[in-house]
Amino acid sequence: MAKQKPRTLSGFMELLPQRQVQFDRMVELLRSSYSRYGFTPLDTPVIEASEVLLAKAGGETEKQIYRFLKGDTDLSLRFDLTVPLAKYVALHYADLAFPFRRFQIGKVYRGERAQRGRFREFYQADIDIIGDGKLDIVNEAEIPSIIYQTFTALGLKRFQIRVNNRKILNGFYAMLGLTDKSGDIMRTVDKLEKIGPEKVAALLTGEEIGITSEQADEILKFIAIQGDNDHVLAALAGYQGRHELFDHGLEELTTVVKYLSAFGVPQTHFAVDLTIARGLDYYTGTVYETTMLDHPEIGSICSGGRYDNLAEYYTDKQLPGVGISIGLTRLFFVLEDQGYLNEEMVTAPADVLILPMTQDLAPAISFATQLRSAGVRAQLYTEQKKFKQKMTYADKIGVPYVAFLGDDEISQNAVSVKDMTTGQQETLPVSEAVSTIATKLNERMAGVEPIREPDHKA
Amino acid sequence: MAKQKPRTLSGFMELLPQRQVQFDRMVELLRSSYSRYGFTPLDTPVIEASEVLLAKAGGETEKQIYRFLKGDTDLSLRFDLTVPLAKYVALHYADLAFPFRRFQIGKVYRGERAQRGRFREFYQADIDIIGDGKLDIVNEAEIPSIIYQTFTALGLKRFQIRVNNRKILNGFYAMLGLTDKSGDIMRTVDKLEKIGPEKVAALLTGEEIGITSEQADEILKFIAIQGDNDHVLAALAGYQGRHELFDHGLEELTTVVKYLSAFGVPQTHFAVDLTIARGLDYYTGTVYETTMLDHPEIGSICSGGRYDNLAEYYTDKQLPGVGISIGLTRLFFVLEDQGYLNEEMVTAPADVLILPMTQDLAPAISFATQLRSAGVRAQLYTEQKKFKQKMTYADKIGVPYVAFLGDDEISQNAVSVKDMTTGQQETLPVSEAVSTIATKLNERMAGVEPIREPDHKA
Repeated sequence: MAKQKPRTLSGFMELLPQRQVQFDRMVELLRSSYSRYGFTPLDTPVIEASEVLLAKAGGETEKQIYRFLKGDTDLSLRFDLTVPLAKYVALHYADLAFPFRRFQIGKVYRGERAQRGRFREFYQADIDIIGDGKLDIVNEAEIPSIIYQTFTALGLKRFQIRVNNRKILNGFYAMLGLTDKSGDIMRTVDKLEKIGPEKVAALLTGEEIGITSEQADEILKFIAIQGDNDHVLAALAGYQGRHELFDHGLEELTTVVKYLSAFGVPQTHFAVDLTIARGLDYYTGTVYETTMLDHPEIGSICSGGRYDNLAEYYTDKQLPGVGISIGLTRLFFVLEDQGYLNEEMVTAPADVLILPMTQDLAPAISFATQLRSAGVRAQLYTEQKKFKQKMTYADKIGVPYVAFLGDDEISQNAVSVKDMTTGQQETLPVSEAVSTIATKLNERMAGVEPIREPDHKA
Repeated sequence: MAKQKPRTLSGFMELLPQRQVQFDRMVELLRSSYSRYGFTPLDTPVIEASEVLLAKAGGETEKQIYRFLKGDTDLSLRFDLTVPLAKYVALHYADLAFPFRRFQIGKVYRGERAQRGRFREFYQADIDIIGDGKLDIVNEAEIPSIIYQTFTALGLKRFQIRVNNRKILNGFYAMLGLTDKSGDIMRTVDKLEKIGPEKVAALLTGEEIGITSEQADEILKFIAIQGDNDHVLAALAGYQGRHELFDHGLEELTTVVKYLSAFGVPQTHFAVDLTIARGLDYYTGTVYETTMLDHPEIGSICSGGRYDNLAEYYTDKQLPGVGISIGLTRLFFVLEDQGYLNEEMVTAPADVLILPMTQDLAPAISFATQLRSAGVRAQLYTEQKKFKQKMTYADKIGVPYVAFLGDDEISQNAVSVKDMTTGQQETLPVSEAVSTIATKLNERMAGVEPIREPDHKA
């Protein structure tokens, strides 16, 4: 028969088993972390009607959409989890209680140009809190604590959550009479780290944007405000009283900072950063970015913010919210690439590989059943292979324990257990073997997080 | 602004939060059950190159595919998890250890005619064991025990796993010299329950199939063999020695039945059933179906079997395997429809809703943090609403506990906890409140399975 060469599309992550276990463990920890903060899981369709999904889209996003006809129906694959959330909340409004706190971890699709570390199918892990008409500012203070707890649970230590407030930025540009140009200005200011203040000033005063050099100086002075949070807030207080929006934003930022320590976010992991803007129109209050301290070049690994109107394309209801998103597939790629995945995690398909050494398999099957009842993952190996091949298999799957049941063991109602890490082997009564293995596995897995930062960074 | 009416495509399941929690709990139990048997999780792309995905497809399946061009690339959405597995194993052969045991729970797509209870996007939950060249028969005996343990873990009790062996069927038809017509015959015999033996005989001897009435009698006699497993095996022994394939199949079936009780499958939940055929070409040995005893009309809720050649369209390697699949979305629909979902499950987004009654939120935030550290899901409610509205919210999300922190409580480092089920309220020291709530929740959740069969069926 002619064979079709098997391949996986470029831009689509397909992991080998050991890596998949690590990825799934991260998803499990995200679910658990989000759940503890009272978010409920959602799972919306991957395919939506194009007219619904693209009600708001445009520009670069629209070009990247996987869009096609099935029969006469114009369909699109979701490109994020926010638009499906907006649709969901507008559609099921009457059945939901607000504030509505949901998380969703699912695949989204963007036909980006293929390049290393860029994915066309990738997981997003989102949380959002949606209010009905209003949403209290305390929610905006809780979000960084969720980011902090979540990455800490994954095993990441050296990261920082950066926070700003769009009202402060918009208010500041309004003070200077530059509201119309604020979009262009913020895009230019974004290049500060890359090209330096002089070139930024030149661009700002150049033909395209055309603000005065006094205005450019004011802007550069403003975004240069940095230091610890108290210092930044004090410097911002110097601008107070000149514009209502600015004052409101400063009040919000002060509240967010005030509650952070109550929420358990250490000062080391949090900074007010006036250079964070996060797009132009959607966000209206607090905005968040999260950077790995040793890999700032990767950009933000968790971003989001406050918005005033989640579902304006679908409903007249005012639905303000605040949310964050982790691009999980890219994050996983980066973690692997930088050697951050903890190789001490047990990634074998089973905890115990059972090798029956007799014709009658009943004792081995019974042992497997007892292990499984105790929550231990057990695989029965019954292929007709030489002993050496069986042990090679055990090594290849990386199983922590191998159990042998020969005539001697069976006659004593015992089992010989080999610890594949230490190489030690002992013969134990069956019930003792089950409890010993279960205990040792628990010890071994306690505190083993999927991420372990390389030593030289610690 | 003109509004786009929000809607979800027909044939796409989108659950309300409480139902989603129940669905997710089922997925979690499936993952846990499959893991205990030593299966490793996989997650392959939803989109594949059409030439790869459709290397084997044809007929009805091909018509249902979501297939489209993105740029010049011909893409298709996966329509099952078996073809992606075949691709995966062929592609990553050198990196895998065999037997390769994997599970995958993911969405697949089929553009079926829309009708109630039929889905175009649906979850499949599959396990497969793939051998390299050979695969021991014991794997075929282990599969029913996985089916049994999995449905039992979900809370289903009244179901039966039906097993047959394709070698027995093919051998039997070969005995009668009817190998060429076996496909047509099996399709006709499948109608037995619906149209009765006389009409089946008429069809078999009719123009289209055209076997003799003696042959038809032989067939009807054969498939009428039923009763307990020993009886069926004894009756089958009467056909022994007439065809090698039949004898081989009977030997396999006998082995599978022999090991079932060792694997812990009760006689009540297992039957040899000679009417089970499962398609025509793919399966070559043991085949499985699973039926709900009180709803046989639903058909099989978990099916599969042994095949000799998983990836023949991609590789010359002989990769035999055995696997089963649960159509999870349809199963969930049926369970809800028939009142099988356990409404006692906690489906609220949080276990505790914390209502701060003071201006300073620090004590409430601290209590939330302590609950979360203890693994209790806690939501802080800080919206500016009247007390009654807050309690209405608590009722609407179905939260088990509401915690109040007013001046009195705070001054005593205490919290008032209301059990929303009993209506009882008590004031406890904060740390005691945390441990009391955690303990009560564990008690409440112990043994609460997502499925509870209606009482009148018990």
